[in-house]
Amino acid sequence: MTADSTTLENEFKSGDEAAASALIEQLGPDLVLVGPAVEGYCRDWHGDVTTGAVAVVRPRNTEEVAQAVRAIGALGLTVVPQGGNTGLVLGATPDRPGSQVVISLERMTAIRRIDSDDFSAVVEAGVILSEFKDRVEEAGLYFPLALGAQGSCRIGGNVSTNAGGINVLRYGMTRELVLGLEVVLPDGSIFDGLSTLRKDNRGIDLKQMFIGAEGTLGIVTAVSFKLMPPAEKVATALLGLGALSDAITLYRRARRDCCDLMSAFEFMPPMAFTLAQEAIPDLQLPMPGDYPAYVLLEISGSGLVDIDDLMHRFLEGVMEDGLVLDGVIAASRNQARNLWLFREGMNEGQAKRGAHLRTDVSVPLSRLPEFVEKAEAAIFAQLPDCLCVSYGHVGDGNVHLNVLPPSGLTQEEVAERIYAAKAVVNEVLDGFEGSISAEHGIGRLKKADFLARVPATQLQLLTAIKQAVDPAGIMNPGCQLNFSADS
Amino acid sequence: MTADSTTLENEFKSGDEAAASALIEQLGPDLVLVGPAVEGYCRDWHGDVTTGAVAVVRPRNTEEVAQAVRAIGALGLTVVPQGGNTGLVLGATPDRPGSQVVISLERMTAIRRIDSDDFSAVVEAGVILSEFKDRVEEAGLYFPLALGAQGSCRIGGNVSTNAGGINVLRYGMTRELVLGLEVVLPDGSIFDGLSTLRKDNRGIDLKQMFIGAEGTLGIVTAVSFKLMPPAEKVATALLGLGALSDAITLYRRARRDCCDLMSAFEFMPPMAFTLAQEAIPDLQLPMPGDYPAYVLLEISGSGLVDIDDLMHRFLEGVMEDGLVLDGVIAASRNQARNLWLFREGMNEGQAKRGAHLRTDVSVPLSRLPEFVEKAEAAIFAQLPDCLCVSYGHVGDGNVHLNVLPPSGLTQEEVAERIYAAKAVVNEVLDGFEGSISAEHGIGRLKKADFLARVPATQLQLLTAIKQAVDPAGIMNPGCQLNFSADS
Repeated sequence: MTADSTTLENEFKSGDEAAASALIEQLGPDLVLVGPAVEGYCRDWHGDVTTGAVAVVRPRNTEEVAQAVRAIGALGLTVVPQGGNTGLVLGATPDRPGSQVVISLERMTAIRRIDSDDFSAVVEAGVILSEFKDRVEEAGLYFPLALGAQGSCRIGGNVSTNAGGINVLRYGMTRELVLGLEVVLPDGSIFDGLSTLRKDNRGIDLKQMFIGAEGTLGIVTAVSFKLMPPAEKVATALLGLGALSDAITLYRRARRDCCDLMSAFEFMPPMAFTLAQEAIPDLQLPMPGDYPAYVLLEISGSGLVDIDDLMHRFLEGVMEDGLVLDGVIAASRNQARNLWLFREGMNEGQAKRGAHLRTDVSVPLSRLPEFVEKAEAAIFAQLPDCLCVSYGHVGDGNVHLNVLPPSGLTQEEVAERIYAAKAVVNEVLDGFEGSISAEHGIGRLKKADFLARVPATQLQLLTAIKQAVDPAGIMNPGCQLNFSADS
Repeated sequence: MTADSTTLENEFKSGDEAAASALIEQLGPDLVLVGPAVEGYCRDWHGDVTTGAVAVVRPRNTEEVAQAVRAIGALGLTVVPQGGNTGLVLGATPDRPGSQVVISLERMTAIRRIDSDDFSAVVEAGVILSEFKDRVEEAGLYFPLALGAQGSCRIGGNVSTNAGGINVLRYGMTRELVLGLEVVLPDGSIFDGLSTLRKDNRGIDLKQMFIGAEGTLGIVTAVSFKLMPPAEKVATALLGLGALSDAITLYRRARRDCCDLMSAFEFMPPMAFTLAQEAIPDLQLPMPGDYPAYVLLEISGSGLVDIDDLMHRFLEGVMEDGLVLDGVIAASRNQARNLWLFREGMNEGQAKRGAHLRTDVSVPLSRLPEFVEKAEAAIFAQLPDCLCVSYGHVGDGNVHLNVLPPSGLTQEEVAERIYAAKAVVNEVLDGFEGSISAEHGIGRLKKADFLARVPATQLQLLTAIKQAVDPAGIMNPGCQLNFSADS
């Protein structure tokens, strides 16, 4: 145990040994972890927060999940569902160690079916995303969800958080990939909706409620997904632009010229190279010069369309028109990998500079440059010693506007800067009718900022639905809403 | 008044003059239609069913919709929301003339915004689909929803029924085109969710509940939509195949070879030509020979991809491999139009043969040929004098398996054949875990068949949500569910 969690661990020990024993009695020792083994399930992905839980239940199949939910409810305890625990908003880690039981889906790892004629798959919640992607690839198809955490995150969490990632532009969020769900409901009944039908208009589409609910309405135990033809050919280019606003013009042109075959369109600031080189010292600059904005463009496809030729002709046109000042096209997979290293190295470089504000906001995509300009100016005016690093997905209107405090501050001063910077960014964002969470969700971390902004009518609807589906309030309490059974 | 509706009309007059007068008093004569003017709103699209209503309210803006809902609720009456009244399942026409008030959205026809940089639009519920598509095209973009009824159906109805159509393969159902909604709730409050954000993961996505709910949870008054780059180039081909099962193999190959640039992939039986020629006598056969199955393939795109060349190279490959026996590519827009005439003429030809069973079912797409074969064999075994005409959207697993009784039967005998045929098709469909409504919805027409099949857990959830959002049961009662306020 680390020093941080001693207090919580003690709380757990003193308060709920009886409950833990009762759980073991009902579910058997094979399913229930107690004691020190619980801790790993109670620490968030960044390692910032460690807490405790009564126990961790690890069911091996849907029926065992249902049994666990019923047993936990009967004992007057509550459930925190957990997949790969890679979330960034504290949605899958407990915050009431004395009453919460983590249900980990990590043992439900069966890929029930991959049907290449049907372009569909049925997969259990505990399957790791990258393993599923590999298996789909072996079957000659493609599952486009792609995230930094894909080697650890699990399918149930991807669905419960409606995960985004780098291919949203072309293939949509997780929601658009889901054909059906199997969900254990708060009363332990099983919602069996694992259809692979493409078109099914039988009234209200119940599965939509559970996507993005972060386990507050039930536990996703299995998912049926759409699959795609493989993206056999990928062309990647890094482009230098005269201004961030040109990125919008370029994006518009690229959508038409490239016939919606773009799979990524990321923007980066000039600072990206400096940061990437701080993380990866031997990284080579792919092109000379220093431009006010950079775009990383990827076009991909399969079969008879010549993707490389398309990329060349597109760039020829936009450079002739002066929209792109300079550019380099990767001549190999290896070179493409190197271009992406700037994007990824930039993230590592920021981490190396110490604690900083990370945001995940979205605005209408036509207003993205204006938002970045205004938010950076506001930060500069109020926190002149901080550095802004803004990058993101142009096609999704999704900006990660990060704020780095200067070096040499105390931990407390850094925390103050981060807190102040978040307030500044959110205030500018509110003027753009933007979202404080483009892809990460609400969880417990963003709940206060969410509840401060959600209109009363929406909050009433959310509460009414929570009340209807989970009247006892046992599913992931404290996540998204401040719901309690007697509200 | 037609003879059919006299009884209902009399009921209306005798029963609810007081309620109608009270409505006029509260909402003003400008908003409320009573008397004979009501009838047109109480007859379904095919003209099969005519009923009555207390009145028709025609609000001009969202606030007036909210006022109407409040007034109707206060009078103890209920609401039937109506758009273009082109639905095929009696979802938008009243069935309790003594207590239901139609709220028609036909006066809410503003296109609030088309933003070509943002690839988005905000449009009111009463706008006619084809008018919206035209306006979007004038702005240099494309709205892909395309239906037979697009000259009459209205946006609010498209969203409330999650409309499908011929471009679902490429662009998804209406759900996938919706970015945000404005909805008047059963208590008259306004859900204001007209965002155009692409990525917004702030918890449960409430708008999803209203898409496909057919007005049972609220009235959609405005919608924000994604827009697409225009499909500037379209290549169309009619192909002759050796068997329907080859259509699945061909579809799979086309998805990869054509890089997901297909916008239609329809299958038709040999009978299609005969039926089309019965409707359009001077229609020319586009190719010689008689093949067991036909596919109408459309590839479309914009910009720098050579769509015609792609179609030619694709067909060259699949004909060399013997997957396609013969084919003709339209050399002009006019020729393409002629190829589509077979598909459309086939529908008209069926109508000319008199009353028949129309179905709208879906199965997993890999099992489509097997389903058609089994269902047609079952019809032939049990109703040997009837003719099956099966066609539909291969990529969506969506089959319209229609059954035509022979000529010379009495009206009663025809009705018996249709009823029997529906039972046969549904029984085979149940063995495929198919959907009795691929795109048309449930409404009142398919409610019994829906309720006979929906699992108890789903029905409990649907009822709980209805209870939570519309506890008084005033929104479109009798549609989808048999919900009443005291249930």
